[in-house]
Amino acid sequence: MEEMSRWPIFDPHSHIDPRRPAARNFDEVLGYHYYTELAHASGMPTERVDSALDPRTRAQNLAEHLSAVDNTVQYSWLVEIARTFHQFPHDRITPANVGGLFDKALHENDGPSWDLHVWKQSRLEAVFLTNEFDDDLEGWDASAYIPCLRTDDLVLKLHEPRTVERLRRTTNVDVIDLASLRQAITVLFDRFTKKGARACAISLPPDFVPHRAAPRRAVTPVRRAIQGLDLRPDEHSEIRATVFWMLAEHCAEFKLPFDLMIGPIRNVYPAGVAGGRDLFDRRVSLYDYRDLFNHFASVVFPVSTLSPDAGAELVAYSWIFPNVLPMGHWWYSNVPAFIAADLKARIQALPKVKLLGYYSDAYKLEFILPKFNMYRRILAETLAGEAIGKQGWTIDRALELARLVLLDNPRRVFGMKPQGSRS
Amino acid sequence: MEEMSRWPIFDPHSHIDPRRPAARNFDEVLGYHYYTELAHASGMPTERVDSALDPRTRAQNLAEHLSAVDNTVQYSWLVEIARTFHQFPHDRITPANVGGLFDKALHENDGPSWDLHVWKQSRLEAVFLTNEFDDDLEGWDASAYIPCLRTDDLVLKLHEPRTVERLRRTTNVDVIDLASLRQAITVLFDRFTKKGARACAISLPPDFVPHRAAPRRAVTPVRRAIQGLDLRPDEHSEIRATVFWMLAEHCAEFKLPFDLMIGPIRNVYPAGVAGGRDLFDRRVSLYDYRDLFNHFASVVFPVSTLSPDAGAELVAYSWIFPNVLPMGHWWYSNVPAFIAADLKARIQALPKVKLLGYYSDAYKLEFILPKFNMYRRILAETLAGEAIGKQGWTIDRALELARLVLLDNPRRVFGMKPQGSRS
Amino acid sequence: MEEMSRWPIFDPHSHIDPRRPAARNFDEVLGYHYYTELAHASGMPTERVDSALDPRTRAQNLAEHLSAVDNTVQYSWLVEIARTFHQFPHDRITPANVGGLFDKALHENDGPSWDLHVWKQSRLEAVFLTNEFDDDLEGWDASAYIPCLRTDDLVLKLHEPRTVERLRRTTNVDVIDLASLRQAITVLFDRFTKKGARACAISLPPDFVPHRAAPRRAVTPVRRAIQGLDLRPDEHSEIRATVFWMLAEHCAEFKLPFDLMIGPIRNVYPAGVAGGRDLFDRRVSLYDYRDLFNHFASVVFPVSTLSPDAGAELVAYSWIFPNVLPMGHWWYSNVPAFIAADLKARIQALPKVKLLGYYSDAYKLEFILPKFNMYRRILAETLAGEAIGKQGWTIDRALELARLVLLDNPRRVFGMKPQGSRS
Ligand SMILES: [Zn+2]
Ligand SMILES: [Zn+2]
Ligand SMILES: [Zn+2]
Repeated sequence: MEEMSRWPIFDPHSHIDPRRPAARNFDEVLGYHYYTELAHASGMPTERVDSALDPRTRAQNLAEHLSAVDNTVQYSWLVEIARTFHQFPHDRITPANVGGLFDKALHENDGPSWDLHVWKQSRLEAVFLTNEFDDDLEGWDASAYIPCLRTDDLVLKLHEPRTVERLRRTTNVDVIDLASLRQAITVLFDRFTKKGARACAISLPPDFVPHRAAPRRAVTPVRRAIQGLDLRPDEHSEIRATVFWMLAEHCAEFKLPFDLMIGPIRNVYPAGVAGGRDLFDRRVSLYDYRDLFNHFASVVFPVSTLSPDAGAELVAYSWIFPNVLPMGHWWYSNVPAFIAADLKARIQALPKVKLLGYYSDAYKLEFILPKFNMYRRILAETLAGEAIGKQGWTIDRALELARLVLLDNPRRVFGMKPQGSRS
Repeated sequence: MEEMSRWPIFDPHSHIDPRRPAARNFDEVLGYHYYTELAHASGMPTERVDSALDPRTRAQNLAEHLSAVDNTVQYSWLVEIARTFHQFPHDRITPANVGGLFDKALHENDGPSWDLHVWKQSRLEAVFLTNEFDDDLEGWDASAYIPCLRTDDLVLKLHEPRTVERLRRTTNVDVIDLASLRQAITVLFDRFTKKGARACAISLPPDFVPHRAAPRRAVTPVRRAIQGLDLRPDEHSEIRATVFWMLAEHCAEFKLPFDLMIGPIRNVYPAGVAGGRDLFDRRVSLYDYRDLFNHFASVVFPVSTLSPDAGAELVAYSWIFPNVLPMGHWWYSNVPAFIAADLKARIQALPKVKLLGYYSDAYKLEFILPKFNMYRRILAETLAGEAIGKQGWTIDRALELARLVLLDNPRRVFGMKPQGSRS
Repeated sequence: MEEMSRWPIFDPHSHIDPRRPAARNFDEVLGYHYYTELAHASGMPTERVDSALDPRTRAQNLAEHLSAVDNTVQYSWLVEIARTFHQFPHDRITPANVGGLFDKALHENDGPSWDLHVWKQSRLEAVFLTNEFDDDLEGWDASAYIPCLRTDDLVLKLHEPRTVERLRRTTNVDVIDLASLRQAITVLFDRFTKKGARACAISLPPDFVPHRAAPRRAVTPVRRAIQGLDLRPDEHSEIRATVFWMLAEHCAEFKLPFDLMIGPIRNVYPAGVAGGRDLFDRRVSLYDYRDLFNHFASVVFPVSTLSPDAGAELVAYSWIFPNVLPMGHWWYSNVPAFIAADLKARIQALPKVKLLGYYSDAYKLEFILPKFNMYRRILAETLAGEAIGKQGWTIDRALELARLVLLDNPRRVFGMKPQGSRS
């Protein structure tokens, strides 16, 4: 079953910086918010990983707190990275051996060749990015690092002057009202798709409810937001819904899947480390998205839910709506226990052509391999236990399904061919 | 452990048409909404299964889309039907072999004997029906096909003129107000129980909250509903609660269990295939039903919840309320992963005399066997793993429990003896 | 792996009466609400366990209903107690053998030595109590039976005259307003901590939302509550939040962990047996607690959630907030299926130094051992399956984790050392 580990990796969502994809030193690995937040949650003061510290010191500081979290799956990725990419011979990273590991993992001077090394050793095929709308999308191979238009700021921060300013600068459209906002967004989609973008993406708080835009109702609040005027809560809500709907219209027009990452609330724990301040409210339902899914029948919506207990509902919505696809297991849901439970239900109840396996959500290239290995292991166990063990499938039939989940489906759904013809 | 497969099947909820219980051709099997909706969800246009097509063409069309869903448990029922009842020799149903299967499964001319054949081969003992309130309940053996009064229309559609019209016609009561509505409902219960009905059933949307009827408050809205006048949302809500409470009062009087199927919202995806348009909102709680469970201590409420994540709450409510019983796993919850998790908790935490195993929810007789086999397999695995493996039970003790769950409890709860004496 | 069974037991929450900790007769074991409520839920009238009956009769009566629940994990504790402490030779407790068991388990005349026997045979190290705020905390060894200040009445029943009366009597503070209420609470914390209390605890209904106290807003409602005047719902809510916040301030000042048991709604089923009337509403989220967790960074909050499906959210909040710790599995969540699912996720995703294994919630000493054995078995299975089986851990590494979870972490978190230095 470990045949899967010889397959290429297609990663439909990450936060990789394509101009600096692999870690230049081990501090960039240890700086992943999973480690700083878990260490902080177990007692480490945030100052110990202050961004002003030099990388070696910061790595040494964090290593002193790693033993508190060496049971976690997140920690296992770390050790796998050290062992796979840096010939690390130990089972645990300690204050005593982190210095040697730091030395081994130094690639400040051979960055691009190191990027390539990690890429090849991981058998990466495509890595999707998270590009701000004003990213110029220049400076990397867009057939390997696939642009993806991230739209949180447009929907959630239109009222912040900086957002409109950035939008004007990057589109050359004088954004002053709903009509010119739409023009600017069209310019963005045009630029992104011409540069090879294959998805639009957004993360949405649990209280967001998409509803059909009513331009007449939105025109004034949107103008007021662009002018930086104070807004009432209902105006905020109208603006968010309107811009979001406009993005969905552009996904339809430009034939882009629209990744919905449903759940995060930002800054719930303001005293946390960078990247470790967001949480969620589990009282969320896809029922709130019914108008969206109905209206945009031609748009593919790969959906991730943040609250692990919301996974079963996503199975039902993917079972009924042709355009709703269950996307990878993400962030607080990205834990083997939750993945395994979800995956079992998805494989038992959903069309195999709709199963989108996994994405890394990684910030550095090195994480893609151990995270996908974790997922592939769970997939293999699920298939061995359920499909082969209980349904009597052959190994070949199980591998065929694994291949769909890991490769064929993501390739097709996020390919450049028009999406309308299927799912 | 496969001893269970030799037991009879007692099926306390189905949508079988007792005048035409088994499928007359394989299109009636493939036409089950599970297949059309899964195929549609994976890209099949609804026109391919249009009801105007001839059966053979429709079966052929659907077969072309089945490979997309051949991983699912729903598909496994299909293959089990083909192999068990139609000597189908293959592992998968394909466009190439569906024609032969269609030929084999043709029973247009020997319908009743085919019904009997399926009944016997499945070792069916009793199959509960879903009878609209104006069903005349004539034309079948009511000791095999047990009538069950389905009451959704009365509660949720009283304001539709057709409902009142049907009610007048079937009861001969001139329904014009709350008092005559009650008379009509008494006539219904009288007729149904005299014809052998052993349950009243309803499916309720997640926002429905039963509350004690206040005739003074309801009398005007109910009259207005019967007259077909426009209603405010709070009037709709009052009418629903009032009629629902009246039904519960009749269940108490006529000693009928009241099956509550909590969760569905109708027509969430209007463009779906027939039967494949309903979904749910997972934010639902049995706490909303406390007044009902308290007030009607003598009524047995077999409860099913649609949202899989609501299953754990049902365990707690069945643990405390004598009159709340955990019913089978249904629709979007009818997936092995969800059943197994639920069943484990139910067996570990609830009195064994309250466990109501499973119901088929089938539209055609052929589905009862593979669905019950799926459930019996999960039950066997759960008992083998948990009870025998971890608690050290003997096989006999495990089988005794299985028998309670599958046969003794449903027979007792849905039997004709007065229910008041126990849970 | 059964090495764990030789370890001492540290039990951070119980309802043991330290003046009469072990059961004096088997009726006190059978009287545990788990048995009376399960028997009642399966048909036993409450009169059969009326408190006016003599113990032997009541035990005999209950035994007649035990066969209905002999599948449950709760029942397995009972048999384990009988076999471990009373040389009971059978597998099931029946009406025929309960008399002999009752005889064997009679310890009316040798109470204290029996307490000690159970304590030693169970290898108990420390058992936390649930002390009402006006408990005089006299008459037992407070290094074995650790006082814990239970505060439900102060927060939820301040408007009841009896509460204020009890508060005045026990503190000698003339409680008449917010300021004197604070004084009285300070007296309580001072007394409890001087007597060795190591935790403050409260159970909170699902609709409780802690928010930062605004004395100006609370001063009038609190005075009115103390005077026993009628209160509006918003005043009730303000009073609860204010008193709760004041307790948290005292936990900070006195360096006590504040156990939050989130979920119960009291008296949902008023006709139930004593202890078997409470349930919950599953629509609850820790997001409502964000202000509390943020504001009281120095207070450790061991959190238990009553609704089993809320467990995954607690994993996320413990992952981020240094002061939120996942506490044991409780009441309706105290079922192996739920514990196993939760525990797997906690071990995979949370710092090992934050994992607080289990508490007995017991009313009689005899229950601590079988309940902890149940948990230790699940812990052993989880570690064998996940950590050793899948992560390749050694047995020693797994045992090291088990020891943290069961002993080292609870000892540290509930120890007398100041808590400020770490979560
Ligand atoms: Zn991301
Ligand atoms: Zn049904
Ligand atoms: Zn307790």
